[in-house]
Amino acid sequence: MRGLMVMDRLNAIEGFIKPNSVAVIGASSDPKKGGYAILANLLEYCRDRLYPVNPKYDEVLGLKCYSSVEQLPEEVDLAIVFTPASQVPRVIEECGRRGIRRVMIQSAGFAEVGIQGRRIQEECLARARKWKIRLWGPNCMGVVNGQERMVASFMRPHVWKEVLKPGPVSLIVQSGMASAGFLMQVMSEGYFGLSKACSIGNRCDVNECDILEYLALDESTQVIAMYIESLADPIRFRRVVEGLGKPLLVLLGGLSPDGARAAMSHTASMAGRGDLAEALFRQLGVKRAYDFVELMDLTKALALWRGRNRGRNVAIVTFSGAAGIVATDHLWKEGLALARLSRETQRQLKEIFPVWMEPSNPVDIWPAIERSGRKRAYTWALKALVEDPAVDAIHVHMYVDRTLMDESWRSLLEPLACYSGRAAMWLIGDTRCFREVRERVETLGIPVYSEIQRGIRALALRD
Amino acid sequence: MRGLMVMDRLNAIEGFIKPNSVAVIGASSDPKKGGYAILANLLEYCRDRLYPVNPKYDEVLGLKCYSSVEQLPEEVDLAIVFTPASQVPRVIEECGRRGIRRVMIQSAGFAEVGIQGRRIQEECLARARKWKIRLWGPNCMGVVNGQERMVASFMRPHVWKEVLKPGPVSLIVQSGMASAGFLMQVMSEGYFGLSKACSIGNRCDVNECDILEYLALDESTQVIAMYIESLADPIRFRRVVEGLGKPLLVLLGGLSPDGARAAMSHTASMAGRGDLAEALFRQLGVKRAYDFVELMDLTKALALWRGRNRGRNVAIVTFSGAAGIVATDHLWKEGLALARLSRETQRQLKEIFPVWMEPSNPVDIWPAIERSGRKRAYTWALKALVEDPAVDAIHVHMYVDRTLMDESWRSLLEPLACYSGRAAMWLIGDTRCFREVRERVETLGIPVYSEIQRGIRALALRD
Repeated sequence: MRGLMVMDRLNAIEGFIKPNSVAVIGASSDPKKGGYAILANLLEYCRDRLYPVNPKYDEVLGLKCYSSVEQLPEEVDLAIVFTPASQVPRVIEECGRRGIRRVMIQSAGFAEVGIQGRRIQEECLARARKWKIRLWGPNCMGVVNGQERMVASFMRPHVWKEVLKPGPVSLIVQSGMASAGFLMQVMSEGYFGLSKACSIGNRCDVNECDILEYLALDESTQVIAMYIESLADPIRFRRVVEGLGKPLLVLLGGLSPDGARAAMSHTASMAGRGDLAEALFRQLGVKRAYDFVELMDLTKALALWRGRNRGRNVAIVTFSGAAGIVATDHLWKEGLALARLSRETQRQLKEIFPVWMEPSNPVDIWPAIERSGRKRAYTWALKALVEDPAVDAIHVHMYVDRTLMDESWRSLLEPLACYSGRAAMWLIGDTRCFREVRERVETLGIPVYSEIQRGIRALALRD
Repeated sequence: MRGLMVMDRLNAIEGFIKPNSVAVIGASSDPKKGGYAILANLLEYCRDRLYPVNPKYDEVLGLKCYSSVEQLPEEVDLAIVFTPASQVPRVIEECGRRGIRRVMIQSAGFAEVGIQGRRIQEECLARARKWKIRLWGPNCMGVVNGQERMVASFMRPHVWKEVLKPGPVSLIVQSGMASAGFLMQVMSEGYFGLSKACSIGNRCDVNECDILEYLALDESTQVIAMYIESLADPIRFRRVVEGLGKPLLVLLGGLSPDGARAAMSHTASMAGRGDLAEALFRQLGVKRAYDFVELMDLTKALALWRGRNRGRNVAIVTFSGAAGIVATDHLWKEGLALARLSRETQRQLKEIFPVWMEPSNPVDIWPAIERSGRKRAYTWALKALVEDPAVDAIHVHMYVDRTLMDESWRSLLEPLACYSGRAAMWLIGDTRCFREVRERVETLGIPVYSEIQRGIRALALRD
């Protein structure tokens, strides 16, 4: 019986994330409206079984438009609603009657705006329960499915073709606009490829536990990053995370008293239980971030490092003594340690260093660069460190400017290509070259950062 | 008597930073050598009284080359030495005999490499004392004077013309290669314009106190940022900083036990007295950074905010509830508070918001954007907040993508152009547009960051 319930839940979520037929209620032919963007985005995914609903139009974007839910030609897998909040309870009732069992409300104006909105949201939920409808949202940005290239969202349609890249990371974001900004940044900057992005908004029914349960079994999801403002169901959250089997990174909003108050009017979250959530995260080994870019940066590292070993002992390879010292300070702050290099490694390093220099960790290779050239210095030093059993991870520092762009980065870092430990790179120099260098280096499974502390925090993440 | 000593010290430093005549000992015509780069850089500054010294050449870069210091045609203001360490004591002796009173050693191989190098450094210092020579370095990257466009450094020459921009910030960096990377990043990214950049290396004679004393009186220096690994003279440091009259930001390397050990072999700093330095910084109100990019980011804010009032009460204007909540959490962490908006401000805000929404701080203007358009929403909200006496500072969040690039950013943010308080902006969205937006917004005196926490840390800086 319980197995059946799980199957029901998984099947419900699957229908939101990979529907075979979709109705867009509140579809519009005005390109400024969300109801236009949702339809335009979905046209790229399922032209055949996509049904705009709006009594104002006979046709929208070349598709026959239906005047009401009742008229729909089939019991669609998913109805996406983008109408004013006050109309939504009626729409749900109509969906129920028409046999539709999944409704995603992308419009806002519900519990997040006060008592009146909360009443509307409760009515939506009551009607959904009556018809056994699963409700997603309201006040959310929808779903993006990277593998299927499905964008079920009011986010502007023109950007997707250019930047959407499938990949191993799934996102759960308890917010609307932040999801949009967040996704746009992930994709335009190329932090990582996307498996599923789920904006759950006020999560009056479908919540982060439902999504996590689904993602645990989703083979294309390898790493999960989440922004939430409270835990919808801490007991179920514990159970789901214990069985997750995939790294989970969380940015929790509303940790401060004022932040908790703001969360109340944002997604109607009963935040201010931050200490409780934090204790649970600690127990469960959930990894944390404290800002949006930090969340993306750390997630990127976990996505690149899948399967790589980790350990506390880090070797630093730097062209700058100062940078080596600052990196060492951050290792210490994060509970990591400088690896004690083996005799063999020291012997190897001596071959590229001037005689007056006794190599140690941090490995300051500037003198070796002066003596042996950049390529030989980096390759030789990295090879020695990769083979040293006392070294668990490597933090590589690189000065970049245009004169270096012609060099073969790949050969410079070759020893790291098959490295079984974790490596991260810090760049300093001409920032106009950073993106190109970063993209090349990250193909080797090495996350690149422009802040020392960020790379060290990544190296300190547990699996 | 003491006044005279101060004048002597200031005069000595002035001659390093703005010399009328320079000899380059170890000049080279090989473009791969530092002795070439130093000369090539200086050629842009003082062709007439610039003298290469190297017995191997008759001419370097079109200038007559002298075979020894003795042959120099005048007692130059500054001799820059770039020869192997073992030759430097003899060079100093020759400089003394020739009447030269300022020597900058840019080569490495001194106290930072062990006992033998330390002995050479001590001999250099002894000879300098004998001839009353002020020594700068060794193991340093030299000096850049932004106003005079003078680059006295072995850093690659081709980049300067493109990126060197004079401005209000002076840097003191106790390092060689980090200075180079740091400067390249500052300039290529356009964090701020440069007044003086001083790389002091092992600082065996000229130290951060000498430079700070000079910069205190240097009118074009408005903000000072410093990377050091220990305080050369804590008692003098206290006196100099108490009389500084300009904000000072410090990144202190070697805070950890391992970092302190590494600092010993980097600039031969007796670090590991980090706790003492930290206590002194706290007493003196010295501002801190913990990473290179953070140091640049915070310095940028102080450079843009000169003369702006500060206070604890911050208003947040955001397009995203989640971002407002995370920003609020960071305010709390940094000891700032959400401003309590006045009734008049709330009344003003209501004019752009939908009726169902009760505006408060954080001001989530998405509903106002939907109702009134982006431009009116931002301009109106910012105008109300700028005029609210309860608001000391403003954190503005902006979603950016290409469709917004045509909008007049200036008019969007017009109310902030003459704002007497501090404002900072957070960007999220299409990162390919960030640089252009950042550059435009920063002309209004508003520092732009892509991390919420960084902007809030900046707003928390004391003057």
